[in-house]
Amino acid sequence: MPVIDFWFEFASTYSYVSAMRVEAEAAERHVSVRWRPFLLGPIFVAQGWNSSPFNLYPAKGRYMWRDLARVCSDHGLPFRRPPEFPQNSLIAARLALIGATEGFLVPFAKAVFAAEFGAGRDISRPESLHGILVELGLDAAALLARARTDEAVKSRLKASTGEAQSLGIFGSPSFMTEDNELFWGNDRMEAALDWASGAGRRPA
Amino acid sequence: MPVIDFWFEFASTYSYVSAMRVEAEAAERHVSVRWRPFLLGPIFVAQGWNSSPFNLYPAKGRYMWRDLARVCSDHGLPFRRPPEFPQNSLIAARLALIGATEGFLVPFAKAVFAAEFGAGRDISRPESLHGILVELGLDAAALLARARTDEAVKSRLKASTGEAQSLGIFGSPSFMTEDNELFWGNDRMEAALDWASGAGRRPA
Repeated sequence: MPVIDFWFEFASTYSYVSAMRVEAEAAERHVSVRWRPFLLGPIFVAQGWNSSPFNLYPAKGRYMWRDLARVCSDHGLPFRRPPEFPQNSLIAARLALIGATEGFLVPFAKAVFAAEFGAGRDISRPESLHGILVELGLDAAALLARARTDEAVKSRLKASTGEAQSLGIFGSPSFMTEDNELFWGNDRMEAALDWASGAGRRPA
Repeated sequence: MPVIDFWFEFASTYSYVSAMRVEAEAAERHVSVRWRPFLLGPIFVAQGWNSSPFNLYPAKGRYMWRDLARVCSDHGLPFRRPPEFPQNSLIAARLALIGATEGFLVPFAKAVFAAEFGAGRDISRPESLHGILVELGLDAAALLARARTDEAVKSRLKASTGEAQSLGIFGSPSFMTEDNELFWGNDRMEAALDWASGAGRRPA
């Protein structure tokens, strides 16, 4: 079964839409999805941005929120704009990496995105993450403590972010096939999965 | 018949793809297209960019060229990367505005885009535009002279660019419906036309 890497940053709006859709679309094409949390902040900083381009360029930001509402509506996804954007996703991303080895990455990631953009909640707050972990039947206090202090987890997130950058990733969501074909954005999710499944066309 | 404004900048890569597709997709939905040439340069400068973001952000630029090749392949469009990017589109845009009142805007615009991104030619060169005008059976020398000197044409292009900016347009292609719904990018062309035709969903 072909594998696709789904690179995502929890602060990213369109990544919410992909996170809620990728499993069904991948299953339809018999593609296996590897969820790859990373931080977009350091990549933005490296290209001279100190915030999201949607904040730095107001016209683009206004458009994005309206477009996101339409896209969510098209996909039947709930949408509620959170009061703050972008949200600090550091602890959520570390928890996701712990989840990758302990079997809760995917339900956790989907619950975080749903809380943030489906319910408009602030996922930078420990209480929000605590509630999500509890609902998944996990030891929230222990996991949050580990996300704050475990040096191995911190290093893995740094390594993942560095790997994303070295792969040429500059935004979220991004999809990388096994033959190193990069697709950026929720709008390219189907094309990426088609490519991974062997159905995509291959220009020279 | 509902009308949609198709705002385009000749230097824009994805606008090529939309220009070659918009008429057929609009006709299918019984939507009439008004082609609106404008200059993206002044809008970019206003947000602090002195070139295309695809040049300012190399990772994004590398991705865009590969993605464009894939998208063109998907739509059966020829693609050849021009040696220079972005190209100065001032004279082409003025000619298009002359064409808007003299009935040659659409075939001219399509021929310019096809030369630039289908054949990799430099459309900032008068010889390129001359050849395109001649092939359309037009008085190329007279039109080029007018594009260089006609103050009314210069003013109309400035006004169009100002109108685009005041509508919140920040990229090309953009699509604006009669009820002021903005869609950005070739990826949103179908959604924009659906909306214009009344088939698009309307989130609150």
